[in-house]
Amino acid sequence: MPKPSVYDILNKKRRGEALTDFEITAVVTGFTWGGIPDYQMSALLMAIAIQGMTTREQAALMRAMLESGERWNLRARFDFLADKHSTGGVGDKVSLALAPWVASCGIHIAMLSGRGLGHTGGTLDKLESIPGFNAHLTRDEIERCLADVGCAITTSTEGIAPADRKLYALRDVTGTVESIPLITASIMSKKLALGPSALILDVKCGAGAFMKSEDEALELARSLLSAARGTGTTAEALVTRIDAPLGRAVGNANEVIEAMDILRGDGPEDVTTLVLALATRILVMSGRFDESSARTTLEEAVRSGRAIEHARRWIEAQGGDAEVVDHPKRLPSPSRTLEVKAARSGYVHAIDPYGVGMLAIRLGAGREKKEDSIDYAAGILFERVTGDRVAAGDTLARVQIGSREVEEADELSAKLADLIRIDNLAPERRPLIVEHLTGTPSEGRRSNEGQPGHRPRL
Amino acid sequence: MPKPSVYDILNKKRRGEALTDFEITAVVTGFTWGGIPDYQMSALLMAIAIQGMTTREQAALMRAMLESGERWNLRARFDFLADKHSTGGVGDKVSLALAPWVASCGIHIAMLSGRGLGHTGGTLDKLESIPGFNAHLTRDEIERCLADVGCAITTSTEGIAPADRKLYALRDVTGTVESIPLITASIMSKKLALGPSALILDVKCGAGAFMKSEDEALELARSLLSAARGTGTTAEALVTRIDAPLGRAVGNANEVIEAMDILRGDGPEDVTTLVLALATRILVMSGRFDESSARTTLEEAVRSGRAIEHARRWIEAQGGDAEVVDHPKRLPSPSRTLEVKAARSGYVHAIDPYGVGMLAIRLGAGREKKEDSIDYAAGILFERVTGDRVAAGDTLARVQIGSREVEEADELSAKLADLIRIDNLAPERRPLIVEHLTGTPSEGRRSNEGQPGHRPRL
Repeated sequence: MPKPSVYDILNKKRRGEALTDFEITAVVTGFTWGGIPDYQMSALLMAIAIQGMTTREQAALMRAMLESGERWNLRARFDFLADKHSTGGVGDKVSLALAPWVASCGIHIAMLSGRGLGHTGGTLDKLESIPGFNAHLTRDEIERCLADVGCAITTSTEGIAPADRKLYALRDVTGTVESIPLITASIMSKKLALGPSALILDVKCGAGAFMKSEDEALELARSLLSAARGTGTTAEALVTRIDAPLGRAVGNANEVIEAMDILRGDGPEDVTTLVLALATRILVMSGRFDESSARTTLEEAVRSGRAIEHARRWIEAQGGDAEVVDHPKRLPSPSRTLEVKAARSGYVHAIDPYGVGMLAIRLGAGREKKEDSIDYAAGILFERVTGDRVAAGDTLARVQIGSREVEEADELSAKLADLIRIDNLAPERRPLIVEHLTGTPSEGRRSNEGQPGHRPRL
Repeated sequence: MPKPSVYDILNKKRRGEALTDFEITAVVTGFTWGGIPDYQMSALLMAIAIQGMTTREQAALMRAMLESGERWNLRARFDFLADKHSTGGVGDKVSLALAPWVASCGIHIAMLSGRGLGHTGGTLDKLESIPGFNAHLTRDEIERCLADVGCAITTSTEGIAPADRKLYALRDVTGTVESIPLITASIMSKKLALGPSALILDVKCGAGAFMKSEDEALELARSLLSAARGTGTTAEALVTRIDAPLGRAVGNANEVIEAMDILRGDGPEDVTTLVLALATRILVMSGRFDESSARTTLEEAVRSGRAIEHARRWIEAQGGDAEVVDHPKRLPSPSRTLEVKAARSGYVHAIDPYGVGMLAIRLGAGREKKEDSIDYAAGILFERVTGDRVAAGDTLARVQIGSREVEEADELSAKLADLIRIDNLAPERRPLIVEHLTGTPSEGRRSNEGQPGHRPRL
């Protein structure tokens, strides 16, 4: 491939002109393997973040990133293989419950997950709080794990979309993370490299999400779905709200415990609803269930204990201590706990998820910089959630200090109290699931507009 | 100064928000001296190039760049010191004639000039074609030269606006050269570091200029003038057209010869008109002349031979061989010349200045990359200019091969013929000087709208 004139490409994109497929492929390849330096690529990323990309440009970008690495096409090996992606939210432990739950219903599911950075935690960090858990599976190990227990969650390997790895590292430090074409290409290049039969996307909006407004989240969801078209992977998306932390636990080990509670039918309502909605769509997308039988099957898996049993088998298959499922004490435990009390009575009106996420970082449960290490036992446990009635003096939440002492623990507890707003009136309840979009754009419907055929009945 | 959050600054500018004075100063300082890496700065430059800057942001940027280096304030040393800046055009040898001409009328003038890159040549390269000419004066040498002969043209020193040097190098390779706030800050930070009493700007528009349209050139001119306000330097601008190469010579040594012709009253009409217009404004800005006496004085300097005599003194003062003024053969001479003949008769309708500039590079007269060396004898000499009547077979131009043999010389000659369009009709004459803007914005007038008080009468 001839060397592209990066200079011309930069000038074109600065002026808002569309790049050709060749220019996009050449610049992605040149950056990943060749001589295009960071300072030129970061200027191009900024130009793309501001000027946007046409559907065609975006498709070319995604393809160039996908083709920069291995393509596993795992759907060829399994009759049906599902994948799920979430744009990330505070307290989002969905994958941990979803994988064994879906697998316990006979559906294969594999997810390449990431680590936490900034206010949202990462699925891999949560899993690695389980002693022995191996989140660095090779392709062979992933396939063996899928064949044995029907599910696997692991980090992406070196071979998958190297262009994305290099591009993401640069976006992360150049203020170009928030860009729909760049987000789409990044997510979809990795997903399509794995090559699942079906992909369910959880695109979050609200205070705790990347995309603050429903409209932005919808735009991203549509962009993601359009990138999947014609690739052999069927995709659907749920646009969901994250106005407060998801569930009651924010951290790592505590979120593993909560995920197991979900599989026992004992999890918090919001996160259980969400996992069930995503799992239902996966079962329906497999073609083996309709909406109603999917739901019944999933509920039966919890009731019968098959779901939690599957979690034990899965954790073991990935080298983890399966005893943690029944004996949470085997997970890293807090060294001490500080209670956050209600200063007044009323209703829990709002819990600021971004603030909670940032506070969790300061406790050691998340990362501010890539090099930071995680204190798995640290976190926050909410005793009350949005909508709950409280009396003055009630415990609202517990700050869990992990293995590392936190000097400003009292200050952080006070800060957490400030993040929980108590009001005289009960808050308006907003639906958790805003919209369900299928791959064909015209079939997307607001779930509150009726259209039972397209909305998960939850 | 605390370290700025570059991440926040990048995100703000990506979203089109204005940066604070502190953020701008911190980021310029951090980039010039501190740890802000190229890849972050290039992303910010791209964001600025696309999103623009408020007048306040632009002023802060210019100030930060100015304050990154020495401030000579030369106007304190001389009663009146002029400076001139051109945004650059093919065949622009204006400075070479302007400096000694103005100085021969008793007006001090100093210019920090640049080298050529891309389709426009550089004043310093042209001067360095004169054997012995020293274009690397120290501040002391500049002052001595000004005291002795009233004029100096030299490269900027290390001490002047180091932030601009670093920023320009990055803009040059990241497609962020064409940005009015960035161009303004770059030009004005250097000019104001020198600290002249008056600055005349030649802002070019048309096919051979950076700014293609008159409107863009006007916008840049206004931006440059507004940056000068309140700085102690009075500024005016002429917006001028460059639809064809300026004058008849494009190269280096051949442009020195043409500049001397201008000082003898023997130069091509277009470039003589332009030099005279700029010189007139400088004399008027000194307060010692009105428009009419300025013009008479300048014309008299040519007629009396004072202007050309001053050129000899100036070249000698900067270490050059002053004999070149009277004996052009002492300059690097072409090894051979190829004639470009008219294929048909008619009028020279247009000569593509950009194409000519790019062709000059291939002859060795300019630089494609910074590292390229210049062949001073190489260039193009036009025998016919726009508007001239020609008969088939007439010589239109001569391709001058310098000291380096050019393998594709015949091909380049054919190419040059293609750049000279001959038509049956004489081309419409467009005024060379489009507008004269003074520092006070309301005083800017279209020169073709009448307003004799504000237009140079040429």
